[in-house]
Amino acid sequence: MYFLLKFVVYAFVVGVVASLTIEERDEANWGGDNASSDTSITNFTIEFEDEVVKDLLYRINNRRKLTPPLKDSAFTYGFNSDQLPDWMNYWANTYNFAERVQYLNQYTHYKTYVQGLGIHFLRVTPEVSSDVEVVPLLLLHGWPGSVREFYDAIPLLTAVSSDRDFAVEVIAPSLPGFGFSDATSIQGLGATEMATVFKNFMKQLGYNQFYVQGGDWGGFIGSMIATLYPDVVLGYHTNFAIAISPLSFATWFAGAVSPSLVADTSVQDRLYPLLTTLPWMMRETGYLHLQSTKPDTLGPAMESPTGMLSYILQLFSMSSRRENVDKTDGGLDLFTKEQLLDNLMIYWITNSFTTSSRLYAETFNTRNLLEGIWATPTSVPTWTAHTKHEMIYMSPAMLKSKFTNLINSTIFDDYGHFFAFEQPDEYSNEVLNAISAFRDYRAKSDTCQLI
Amino acid sequence: MYFLLKFVVYAFVVGVVASLTIEERDEANWGGDNASSDTSITNFTIEFEDEVVKDLLYRINNRRKLTPPLKDSAFTYGFNSDQLPDWMNYWANTYNFAERVQYLNQYTHYKTYVQGLGIHFLRVTPEVSSDVEVVPLLLLHGWPGSVREFYDAIPLLTAVSSDRDFAVEVIAPSLPGFGFSDATSIQGLGATEMATVFKNFMKQLGYNQFYVQGGDWGGFIGSMIATLYPDVVLGYHTNFAIAISPLSFATWFAGAVSPSLVADTSVQDRLYPLLTTLPWMMRETGYLHLQSTKPDTLGPAMESPTGMLSYILQLFSMSSRRENVDKTDGGLDLFTKEQLLDNLMIYWITNSFTTSSRLYAETFNTRNLLEGIWATPTSVPTWTAHTKHEMIYMSPAMLKSKFTNLINSTIFDDYGHFFAFEQPDEYSNEVLNAISAFRDYRAKSDTCQLI
Repeated sequence: MYFLLKFVVYAFVVGVVASLTIEERDEANWGGDNASSDTSITNFTIEFEDEVVKDLLYRINNRRKLTPPLKDSAFTYGFNSDQLPDWMNYWANTYNFAERVQYLNQYTHYKTYVQGLGIHFLRVTPEVSSDVEVVPLLLLHGWPGSVREFYDAIPLLTAVSSDRDFAVEVIAPSLPGFGFSDATSIQGLGATEMATVFKNFMKQLGYNQFYVQGGDWGGFIGSMIATLYPDVVLGYHTNFAIAISPLSFATWFAGAVSPSLVADTSVQDRLYPLLTTLPWMMRETGYLHLQSTKPDTLGPAMESPTGMLSYILQLFSMSSRRENVDKTDGGLDLFTKEQLLDNLMIYWITNSFTTSSRLYAETFNTRNLLEGIWATPTSVPTWTAHTKHEMIYMSPAMLKSKFTNLINSTIFDDYGHFFAFEQPDEYSNEVLNAISAFRDYRAKSDTCQLI
Repeated sequence: MYFLLKFVVYAFVVGVVASLTIEERDEANWGGDNASSDTSITNFTIEFEDEVVKDLLYRINNRRKLTPPLKDSAFTYGFNSDQLPDWMNYWANTYNFAERVQYLNQYTHYKTYVQGLGIHFLRVTPEVSSDVEVVPLLLLHGWPGSVREFYDAIPLLTAVSSDRDFAVEVIAPSLPGFGFSDATSIQGLGATEMATVFKNFMKQLGYNQFYVQGGDWGGFIGSMIATLYPDVVLGYHTNFAIAISPLSFATWFAGAVSPSLVADTSVQDRLYPLLTTLPWMMRETGYLHLQSTKPDTLGPAMESPTGMLSYILQLFSMSSRRENVDKTDGGLDLFTKEQLLDNLMIYWITNSFTTSSRLYAETFNTRNLLEGIWATPTSVPTWTAHTKHEMIYMSPAMLKSKFTNLINSTIFDDYGHFFAFEQPDEYSNEVLNAISAFRDYRAKSDTCQLI
């Protein structure tokens, strides 16, 4: 809602100017005074330091008295505090720190420096016979997620199958300011700038061309890579397909009068009536508004593990199912407690709530919107997945002005925003199908060019 | 911005219905299972319990590592964390808890039960000679403020002067859910419902008619009392004059074309250009959006004193001067550290961040807007004060559809949102002038009726 508004105010009235050249983007150094030009790739291991865990346990066990929820309010005023003691006790007493850090280290972790910033990543390479081609897939997570979102999907994505003449190598970095990647000390590192960082990152790893997949911020950044560097992206798959362009929003609003012009009958309820969808978006995007404007005001309070859990898990609840707001437990049993706490641990041990939240402020601002990259079309073959409970649905009619080669949009009649995390099977099938289609599409294009 | 939007979406499209009768309002019991029907008035003393202070000091001194601000960002990303160590050290080591609690207890505090809820208040009665009439003034604070806002103004407001044939008795309650007043456990206690609570509160104290003054929420609630119970309000003064009505906003937007139809030349810059005022409002109201929708998600994190200070003081910075956002220290030296920390202590010791924040959610919602009380006119004599840096300026042309007896609007060329707190002298003069004018107005009306 917030950036939609900004867009209406600015993009229509003031117009659109791309302000930075590709060269300027490439040369940006985000490391500030601590920048490293070391481009070697080193191993990295996640650690839950004793002292950090001890401090965390102290904070959990010495939390202040919680304010009881209002009567019968479920999650309608936010995280229901009657649920917090169970969560906090589980985190302190049942969550097995030693086992979980081993779990998180099951994949090989690496770190390298790109544009002066240390970037952490997982790389999982399948072993294949000579007749199988290995193709690189850049997997980008979002907020308040992490590489942990992909843990269950990685074995499925990288599996070798006799049905396919290719196998996928997964490269899953932590976004700058998130988890184990460095945060910048300089203003201006938004989604567009991260797109350049990840293009350079992939090049540094030896990939001149690759596939991209992402949801949430990962989807935005992937879309930016496809827009700025169409030649390096073999195909772009997202489960958070948004075209922030005047035409797209105009199409949406025009469809209020005649929905069938905009979307198939079966999914019109994801867009209309506007009197349902717009107020829902307004009600659920307060976090986005605050983080887009005052991330540093909010950050210090997240030294409270109870507060961080409440803040982050309410978003997992809201974004997973519309009906969760009316459930006493917020419907969080869609995930295991270990899944959600592993992800929280990544924020906690790296103390990265503030730096990660700044991505909103660095992206949803005037400078970024005026550059016009959001609305610039890309010809990269694009495949979108639409889960039922995704926060925003955009139909092909709304997406095509941005993604001119939209080769497929898969509609799911269930599932939520954290698709890979919640449904690793469905997610992996979907992504593998998309990569197959991208390969077919490219093969056909190449043949046509030969003829 | 948020409620403006809601209003546009709802009030225009759906229309306006008043759903509760005055009788139903009067009978509402907000005490829930703990309701008390004891209507006696008892003394109350603020205490800083040793254990609470000890716990606070531990939390301050064992805060987590702060995230450094981005280079040269001042307060543009929110509270600049380079400022936090000084603030936290001052709170822990220089702020004199024993002296300050004595300071807070300098006025006599009371408590009584209204509609089942314990209401805390100050009452300061001037000693006068027989030719001076004592008139009651209900002083209502806002968020994130408290009765502490009025401490410096109270002696000035209650002073007896030979220039006046009246003297003011101040009654300053803590709003329900704020400070030392009880919080409800039941959904639905918004600004409109608080208006009834305070009408009943004043009646219980023996005042059938009184003056009302307030800014921020105090202004809203005062406006609601004047709307629902015009016969009990002798005059309404506010330094936060807002008419949330379609006509008022339509006037504002229409004025974008021809500002002089809406406001005097000297204050047009407080309304226009919309491309300045609307984005400013959007940028500064993330807290309002989040608290209007998910107060319970945010609340638990405020067990961090560093977080609570950062969150609350950034709002004092922003709302006091437009230019504070570009100052490294946020311009907070407009207030003494004791002023700001006293106010924080009231939130801290009562653990009332969550319950007070809920007022946003209970007010800026569909139910409340559909009742139409916001847009219902009141004939109560009204006097508005407009400081230069107030978050929103509404000219008489915008206010008159709501306040049909707007007898004066004072323009100040300086000062901010916390007028009484920042400028007790100017504030008190202004309020006393208004009460004089209300008395003259009533005397004239009575005379006219007699003739």
